[in-house]
Amino acid sequence: MDKLDAIFAPESIAVIGASTQKGKVGHDIFANILFGGFKGTIYPVNPKAKSIIGVKCYTSVTNIPDPIDLAMVILPPKLALNAVKECIAKGVKGVVIVSAGFKEVRGEGAEIEEQIKAVCRAANIRLVGPNCLGVINPSPDVSLNASFSSRMPTAGNVSFISQSGALCTAVLDFAADKGFGFSKFISIGNKADVDELDLLRYYHKDPNTDVVMIYMEELSRGAEEFISEVREMTSGVNPTPVIAIKSGTSVAGAAAAASHTGALAGSDAIYDSIFFQSGIVRCHTVNELFDYAQALAAKKIPNGDKIAIVTNAGGPGIIATDMSENSGLSLARFSDETISELHKYLPPTANFHNPVDVIGDAARDRYENTLATVLSDPGVDGVLIILTPQSMTDAMGTAEAIVNIARNAIKPIVCSFMGVVDVSDGVKLLQRNHVPVYQFPESAARAMGVLYRSKQWLSRKILPEYAVVHDVERAGRIVQDCMDRGQTTMGELDGSELLACYGFKTLDMALAKTRAEAIQIAGRIGYPVVMKIVSEQILHKSDAKAVMVGIVTPDEAGEAFDKIMANAEAYNSMAKLDGVLVQESAKKGREVILGVSRDDVFGHAVMFGLGGIFVEVYKDVVFRMAPMGRNVARRMVKGIKGYPLLAGVRGEAPADIEALEKNLVSLRAMVTDYPVIKELDINPLFVHEAGEGTTVADVIIKFEPLKK
Amino acid sequence: MDKLDAIFAPESIAVIGASTQKGKVGHDIFANILFGGFKGTIYPVNPKAKSIIGVKCYTSVTNIPDPIDLAMVILPPKLALNAVKECIAKGVKGVVIVSAGFKEVRGEGAEIEEQIKAVCRAANIRLVGPNCLGVINPSPDVSLNASFSSRMPTAGNVSFISQSGALCTAVLDFAADKGFGFSKFISIGNKADVDELDLLRYYHKDPNTDVVMIYMEELSRGAEEFISEVREMTSGVNPTPVIAIKSGTSVAGAAAAASHTGALAGSDAIYDSIFFQSGIVRCHTVNELFDYAQALAAKKIPNGDKIAIVTNAGGPGIIATDMSENSGLSLARFSDETISELHKYLPPTANFHNPVDVIGDAARDRYENTLATVLSDPGVDGVLIILTPQSMTDAMGTAEAIVNIARNAIKPIVCSFMGVVDVSDGVKLLQRNHVPVYQFPESAARAMGVLYRSKQWLSRKILPEYAVVHDVERAGRIVQDCMDRGQTTMGELDGSELLACYGFKTLDMALAKTRAEAIQIAGRIGYPVVMKIVSEQILHKSDAKAVMVGIVTPDEAGEAFDKIMANAEAYNSMAKLDGVLVQESAKKGREVILGVSRDDVFGHAVMFGLGGIFVEVYKDVVFRMAPMGRNVARRMVKGIKGYPLLAGVRGEAPADIEALEKNLVSLRAMVTDYPVIKELDINPLFVHEAGEGTTVADVIIKFEPLKK
Repeated sequence: MDKLDAIFAPESIAVIGASTQKGKVGHDIFANILFGGFKGTIYPVNPKAKSIIGVKCYTSVTNIPDPIDLAMVILPPKLALNAVKECIAKGVKGVVIVSAGFKEVRGEGAEIEEQIKAVCRAANIRLVGPNCLGVINPSPDVSLNASFSSRMPTAGNVSFISQSGALCTAVLDFAADKGFGFSKFISIGNKADVDELDLLRYYHKDPNTDVVMIYMEELSRGAEEFISEVREMTSGVNPTPVIAIKSGTSVAGAAAAASHTGALAGSDAIYDSIFFQSGIVRCHTVNELFDYAQALAAKKIPNGDKIAIVTNAGGPGIIATDMSENSGLSLARFSDETISELHKYLPPTANFHNPVDVIGDAARDRYENTLATVLSDPGVDGVLIILTPQSMTDAMGTAEAIVNIARNAIKPIVCSFMGVVDVSDGVKLLQRNHVPVYQFPESAARAMGVLYRSKQWLSRKILPEYAVVHDVERAGRIVQDCMDRGQTTMGELDGSELLACYGFKTLDMALAKTRAEAIQIAGRIGYPVVMKIVSEQILHKSDAKAVMVGIVTPDEAGEAFDKIMANAEAYNSMAKLDGVLVQESAKKGREVILGVSRDDVFGHAVMFGLGGIFVEVYKDVVFRMAPMGRNVARRMVKGIKGYPLLAGVRGEAPADIEALEKNLVSLRAMVTDYPVIKELDINPLFVHEAGEGTTVADVIIKFEPLKK
Repeated sequence: MDKLDAIFAPESIAVIGASTQKGKVGHDIFANILFGGFKGTIYPVNPKAKSIIGVKCYTSVTNIPDPIDLAMVILPPKLALNAVKECIAKGVKGVVIVSAGFKEVRGEGAEIEEQIKAVCRAANIRLVGPNCLGVINPSPDVSLNASFSSRMPTAGNVSFISQSGALCTAVLDFAADKGFGFSKFISIGNKADVDELDLLRYYHKDPNTDVVMIYMEELSRGAEEFISEVREMTSGVNPTPVIAIKSGTSVAGAAAAASHTGALAGSDAIYDSIFFQSGIVRCHTVNELFDYAQALAAKKIPNGDKIAIVTNAGGPGIIATDMSENSGLSLARFSDETISELHKYLPPTANFHNPVDVIGDAARDRYENTLATVLSDPGVDGVLIILTPQSMTDAMGTAEAIVNIARNAIKPIVCSFMGVVDVSDGVKLLQRNHVPVYQFPESAARAMGVLYRSKQWLSRKILPEYAVVHDVERAGRIVQDCMDRGQTTMGELDGSELLACYGFKTLDMALAKTRAEAIQIAGRIGYPVVMKIVSEQILHKSDAKAVMVGIVTPDEAGEAFDKIMANAEAYNSMAKLDGVLVQESAKKGREVILGVSRDDVFGHAVMFGLGGIFVEVYKDVVFRMAPMGRNVARRMVKGIKGYPLLAGVRGEAPADIEALEKNLVSLRAMVTDYPVIKELDINPLFVHEAGEGTTVADVIIKFEPLKK
């Protein structure tokens, strides 16, 4: 038995801090459990009361004569800590602390939260909260409403996880208004112990949960752990769709970053990649959350992107067509059989092509016949039905017909019954029978789009991983040397050496400390060469006029050395000049940028985009977190808007995308091996034509020890 | 008196085609007028009935003994035509034809519609429809519900125009559910006479209309007329905000276009520019339409983008902050006075900085004091209040406090009372008092964003127009010559000449028909020169290897001539080769594309974007319709994502943006002078550094006579 069963389906509950005073949380939660018709037994605990709402009260949880599965704790921090210790002594299996005043207020509250967490962990019991709304399980076997909210939702197949308690009450109201049922509903507050991932694991195994909705304020786990597990839940055996709303401001912190990658790695971009890689559908409004949950809860997804639209009004049909195309769908082209079949049922003024217009005076039969006909067309992957109330409209009858057809259909059917009042009986019938129904056609089309994305996610192509071999030993020495010298950044010379250990093709180069050395190195490398200043204080070498290219003779090399040193000196007389880097000229290719930025909670995000102005002005980049192998890298490269520039436009040969993918996989491996890497820019990496590989033309790496 | 008064506020109505049979449109519309409490007099017309719902019936409108303002016609096309003729004989002032079967079914129906339109125009009376839902005016003085829908909305200050009748019933239901009132409500169907622009003019003058909502399927007027008038309504004296929902598929037709501009000028891009230039807020869902209308109907807009958020729960506060930033707003920084004032009212655990968290147990007083305090901070331009139902929450009292403060406030206040049922009394109070209130904070934030956009639109900077002089006479000769020769395209040679008449700097060039001519022309122009094939059959000259650059000697020029002719011949042996163009080498600059595409209804759309791969891969372009002077051109140039590349990035000098703006204004003037231009690409135009102008480096123009 899962430990969370004690929380979602307890047989007995102690409400510690239950109160006789109406309006107090300790009273209301007790009352909500009691009046919610809980199938087990509840015991109020309050040393000062004899009974609460007529139920015998106990002075302490330890005095309760029966075993207790779940303790609901509504007490200020210090008392809560004592209560939890008593719960442990009593052998309670799960604890929910509803009260606030813990980590969120910092100071003593935070310390007590840490202590509670520690004693629960030591006792091996699960803890929800503190600072949460509670837990609800409307299943008739349990009928548990251990929450602030007096509203018990109806039972359904969607489970909810909310970090915010306040949002829960609003969501419950909203759901009631939409006739939306829940399987399990929980608010996790400060997440001292139980968090989203724990609950996702539980919901994934729960036979009564078909879809999970999450309201997330922030994720508190490493991205790799979260993504690895959740992508299995959303696309492995017995997949469970997950939809999340996450608000993330992307402004803070970015200004301080030293690299392009750091500057672009806002939290919003990171969350986008975490959700994308986990297969979680991200949405931005609560309306979308419910719209998509409803569609996914019907458990039918289209095999392809071709949908049929059936409508009794032209305008809404246009809206649906438009929004379908915006949602990645396209309109099916009917077979000749379908069209001639439609001619049997529809009046001559109807539109027999997609979107089918059954005309304003359509009653039940036209909808019924048309739906059955288009649904059986092999070129149709799903159907969107629009009903607008007009004089002959039979909303109830049409809903009945849809329900009957939907019951045996493999393809998804979504509806838009427009209007709130006139069509409400039909809408309720559809809802009761799990046929997704929306007020407006744009919502229905968007929901169908999400169903198709779900199909794409489930059937995504997975290629075998690249076999990459890295010289980890040599890389370790390079990094260690850098650490030993107390460096916080690594420039092109060492950086290229490090990258070379991970299979990157780098340029031949060496540091010249004198004019003579510069000439000698250039001779060894072979002309033309590039020369540039090396100084930790001069990051923008071009600004200092300390980069020279196309040097073709020993004399030029000598002159370049003197000039670069002089310009650097003039640019910043305080800078320590290490010398001049003499470097092989890079074979040109398409310029891309590869980067890394580390977040102390999530870990490293790897970035990819086109280089130069594309990254600066268009910010056309993609981030991906670990785990990141060939398949993630491949979708990453294809994920930028400028991908056609790599694949080849205007008859250009394609770039070596495979080599680029390997570089990304190796870069990911490198930062996993050396978590001390805080930021990294390979800018540019030249990607040559297919088969000719890539070349690192510049790199900068910043180190920062991990916190704690 | 406006002619549309007869339609919106008639004193007498004849319902022609009224029916005794319940469920028929002719019955229901009559019943809806009667039971809707119409303040004037209604007369049913039906040759076969004595009375309808107890009201004396007339055999013909001409037999009615009293004058008639409005005739509602519910008859099939042929009978409708007769009825309209009788109405004219009777002296009726306005006609609404509800029935369908006209233009939308083509053939005879369309012909009859044309006839009806003609007789109405000749008689100088206004016609609404055919194929529409009717007209509603809930004002207590009129109380007119001449529509399909039995639902009379409450009176309000928002007027509605819908092209689709079907959508109207759904919108009326939706509005009823939201407690949303209307001033006037009309469905215009086929728009045989009265269309959106007529109604916008009427609503703009209507003292009872503060906001207009439009549901548009397609606009049937030229863009210039529409934009010129509507932008005055939305931003001139006594501005009326207009919000529109428009569905436009952008796929059709684009494949056939011959130019970049034509390929990118999808109808959606055109509508976007029409709405943008008119100052119409475009939205994509009916929810947004209502959300924005509610906000604008409160008639308060923020002076700047700085808002304060007041909440009793952290999570929704984060959502609101996030969505505010996404909506172009930013969070105000409170003054020290504000913060110390807040300390007087709020508990120490509150958050005193923006977003202000008044904590879950806040009752009315904390909200009241906090709202008053932040509203009076001079750094705050508007306030967003979030209330989530918790145990101490007083939704009704808080709503009262908000209403009292809002009554005297100049700054806008928008609310999110989360939840449907628990807070509904408070919500209703806010609605009755015109304080915008939303279910979820993201909607409130988005609505505040629209209010700020409204402010930006009203206070946009308007600079004096450029004085541009064009050699229209010479341009006319060039175009005429081209027409006389029967050409449908104009290449670089003539095209440059034409552009030169409009102030464009073009390259010195001439056509060489022989090797000797090529050498002679190159000598006159001065080396280096560029040479390229001229042939109507070879549009992609590079593909044919028929372009050579950097030609620096007479010998090279001669060789280039032979080679280009040979390559062109090899590329397409059927092509007629006019010769080789010898051209001055262009001084480099930033590459942009200027284009034009003509739509037969809307007129010319002018396009601007960065050239080369930017237009091909990133499609980073902006379209604008006429009227288009300096101010439109300026916002157009600033409107592309890549604008920083023109303004100067990485310390680059800015490009000559003023010259570019002048080019755009002149290009607009040119296509207005020569509507025969169907498509045009100037690709690239080199924009040199500020003060150094621009140079046309290639141009192609396609002609097509205007239809009808």
